Amino acid sequence: MSDVADWWSTAIIDMEPGRIDIRGRPIQELIGSVTFPQMIWLMLRGDLPSGGQARLLEAALVAGVDHGPQAPSIATARMAVTCGAALNQAMASAVNLLDDVHGGAGEQAVELYHRIDASGDIPGEVARWRTERGKYVPGFGHRFHTPTDPRAPRLMALVRDAAKAGEVSGRFATIAEGIEAHLAGIAGKPVPMNIDGATAVIFAELGFAAPLARGLFCLSRSVGILAHAWEQKQQGGRNKGPTPPGYRWTYTGS
Amino acid sequence: MSDVADWWSTAIIDMEPGRIDIRGRPIQELIGSVTFPQMIWLMLRGDLPSGGQARLLEAALVAGVDHGPQAPSIATARMAVTCGAALNQAMASAVNLLDDVHGGAGEQAVELYHRIDASGDIPGEVARWRTERGKYVPGFGHRFHTPTDPRAPRLMALVRDAAKAGEVSGRFATIAEGIEAHLAGIAGKPVPMNIDGATAVIFAELGFAAPLARGLFCLSRSVGILAHAWEQKQQGGRNKGPTPPGYRWTYTGS
Amino acid sequence: MSDVADWWSTAIIDMEPGRIDIRGRPIQELIGSVTFPQMIWLMLRGDLPSGGQARLLEAALVAGVDHGPQAPSIATARMAVTCGAALNQAMASAVNLLDDVHGGAGEQAVELYHRIDASGDIPGEVARWRTERGKYVPGFGHRFHTPTDPRAPRLMALVRDAAKAGEVSGRFATIAEGIEAHLAGIAGKPVPMNIDGATAVIFAELGFAAPLARGLFCLSRSVGILAHAWEQKQQGGRNKGPTPPGYRWTYTGS
Amino acid sequence: MSDVADWWSTAIIDMEPGRIDIRGRPIQELIGSVTFPQMIWLMLRGDLPSGGQARLLEAALVAGVDHGPQAPSIATARMAVTCGAALNQAMASAVNLLDDVHGGAGEQAVELYHRIDASGDIPGEVARWRTERGKYVPGFGHRFHTPTDPRAPRLMALVRDAAKAGEVSGRFATIAEGIEAHLAGIAGKPVPMNIDGATAVIFAELGFAAPLARGLFCLSRSVGILAHAWEQKQQGGRNKGPTPPGYRWTYTGS
Repeated sequence: MSDVADWWSTAIIDMEPGRIDIRGRPIQELIGSVTFPQMIWLMLRGDLPSGGQARLLEAALVAGVDHGPQAPSIATARMAVTCGAALNQAMASAVNLLDDVHGGAGEQAVELYHRIDASGDIPGEVARWRTERGKYVPGFGHRFHTPTDPRAPRLMALVRDAAKAGEVSGRFATIAEGIEAHLAGIAGKPVPMNIDGATAVIFAELGFAAPLARGLFCLSRSVGILAHAWEQKQQGGRNKGPTPPGYRWTYTGS
Repeated sequence: MSDVADWWSTAIIDMEPGRIDIRGRPIQELIGSVTFPQMIWLMLRGDLPSGGQARLLEAALVAGVDHGPQAPSIATARMAVTCGAALNQAMASAVNLLDDVHGGAGEQAVELYHRIDASGDIPGEVARWRTERGKYVPGFGHRFHTPTDPRAPRLMALVRDAAKAGEVSGRFATIAEGIEAHLAGIAGKPVPMNIDGATAVIFAELGFAAPLARGLFCLSRSVGILAHAWEQKQQGGRNKGPTPPGYRWTYTGS
Repeated sequence: MSDVADWWSTAIIDMEPGRIDIRGRPIQELIGSVTFPQMIWLMLRGDLPSGGQARLLEAALVAGVDHGPQAPSIATARMAVTCGAALNQAMASAVNLLDDVHGGAGEQAVELYHRIDASGDIPGEVARWRTERGKYVPGFGHRFHTPTDPRAPRLMALVRDAAKAGEVSGRFATIAEGIEAHLAGIAGKPVPMNIDGATAVIFAELGFAAPLARGLFCLSRSVGILAHAWEQKQQGGRNKGPTPPGYRWTYTGS
Repeated sequence: MSDVADWWSTAIIDMEPGRIDIRGRPIQELIGSVTFPQMIWLMLRGDLPSGGQARLLEAALVAGVDHGPQAPSIATARMAVTCGAALNQAMASAVNLLDDVHGGAGEQAVELYHRIDASGDIPGEVARWRTERGKYVPGFGHRFHTPTDPRAPRLMALVRDAAKAGEVSGRFATIAEGIEAHLAGIAGKPVPMNIDGATAVIFAELGFAAPLARGLFCLSRSVGILAHAWEQKQQGGRNKGPTPPGYRWTYTGS
């Protein structure tokens, strides 16, 4: 029988009837005492962040909630509710689309920052990344927000403030700014840090492993997904397609 | 062309290159200024909550993050990563399970509270609910936490404090306590309010529509789903099944 | 231990090392001997269909594979692969959208046919359906294929042939044609049977429970979902949105 | 406007009111004329297979439908319906788990066969695979079916028959048997071809690209997922967890 009890194991939660401990802390002591970002940190890390750490995490979570219904994830959530999906179901289909290309840039940027942090070689690591992964340097450039994604400078200012206050080291901010300068030099024009690049600085400064950059972005963007699904539910519609009914598609067969 | 531009419409977000406004507010003014629960409220409702409202919402979000790996959603997330799923993908499969029975009790409880708020008739509405939907009264009783789910009294105390401070009306707390007393009378034993019943009080007090009780629970439980998926990723495993390999299943065919 | 072994139970499959029996038949005797539709029937029903039954099921499975990229499920699958999703993941997000409105009409039509089969009262059951569920009568009318969905008459001809051959009763075909005539009388114009109405006739004739009409449609449409996801993968694209980048959306906030 | 019409393009399907052409063929001519496996091939490839090709594809689709409720995908589907999920929703969550480790072995095996087909070097390619991807050689060995997965020899016999009949080349069968012999030599014991290795031979013989091996497996296993979800729906249950309620989990925190 012990093998069955051991089959599932976790250090996150312990329970018996009437008792729920999260990371060793009674749930009733956490409710009303810790903020939601602190709880997120506690669940993922096992300890509680400092006030400054929690504020940075909170800023990153606030920054990523939405980028509008042309994002494939948001469009999917909005279409899903017109197909009869409940809100959790719409969220599921949409979060599933926050994959390598759509929601994975932050994770990749943290990986790149870690490589540069280890080797100190920005040009070399950028070149190596492009050789291995293709031309896109994660976290830099934006096909829409030119010249500047308004979220990035605000987030970077908060990181710099936190570094001055001794809450974080600031070295990943320096790395990211170094990449930005390097890319501008190569391209002969600005390739500004985007939301993924800036939130990746925060996640790296706070010590989150790279895959959690994607996970935390999913928590953040889930808010936008939920809000759009709910708005679409109120707008109504049945089997809403991507374009108005009159447009259909181009047939490319012979 | 205007029909294409009109095909997708939203009051949540407005954008042009270099500008992102959420509910009419520049994103850079929100980042670092509002809390994550405030941002959730803003996205869903269009305005910012008072401090007291935000604290109640935060308490509900903190309370629901996890109930352990025997919950089907958490088990699914943990199995998913052992199948090769990325974190967003594991979250998608798991949130999809937060459906009517697993994640919908809060939504149903808000509906029941609204009915009672309209008619004033607790016994009548409870009886009508059971006739329409079956024996389970959403938000009350727990198959594991007997006699008391530790989250519920803590959340209710916060609601009562907020009512005294004039932040909320407190009438949904009264309704929920009335249901609890009524059910105890019928059953001849305590049928205590559970986490869904208590968070539903908060969501109803704050004026959220019933379906958003499910949506907000999904945001909260997504934290636990992410944490467990990540922990399982670190534990490793390949194609982890629900029980240890030696157990298989009972064949009930002839 | 027996409670663990009993926790999962099934009459579908039995196994021991080196042996896999499906519904009591060794898998190696099924492979190469039964058709894929026969295997689908065996898995769902426990026995093998007659040749005529299998051909009708096959026709329904062939008929429903695709209705183009404006269907929200197909659009989702195509967008998903541009976000980095693997094919199984794109299929998951898309099948999730085959819900009540998008993929549930066949299930609802079977329900309606069963009601009429029991009461014999087409006008009464249609009126009752509309009172309970809204104006749409599942399986009839099409917003695009006017006057005729080309799949429906072909499927109905096959059902009629099978009825003549004694493979099925034909009574659900009669019911469906009765609904079609009744709706035309009410509307003063044709409200022709659509693909969902016609496949529902087949599923009802074959004795499938209503929810399996949705399940079988999912098996069928999964083919189209996979084909479109794969075609999009080859077309390329990153974070493909629902409309071309220049269109964005209409902001409806103040 | 043309950019909108061009935004979605496909060679799979063409439509106008009253007309649906699949790969240039009127749908009503396909219904009742082609088998479901032929339709799958047509959708994915653009042409119709020969009879022998279709039979091999059908055998692979039949072979993969189920491996029991301990598979994480099947367990997820069964749990999902007890959470209130509809059948399409249960299928979605489950297919999402057919990822790299759970459903991707066939895709990987096709890749490996293609490498060996190009270089002719079995030991070299196996060694290179293990260096790049880890110790598991996709398609060979089974943790449960020792010494033999009963599906593999049956599928291989069908491939050999088709090769004798000139339907396929048989060279991927030879490659797979070469890998099997090589691995046995290294391991000093049999490492027999499993279901993924054998279906990969079929998919490679038939000319399917490697990712479609995963896609086709998803079509096949969706049958088992649907059957188990439906059986569980009939068994009932609410929020079914992975192990019986009494077992919970091992708390590994301090």
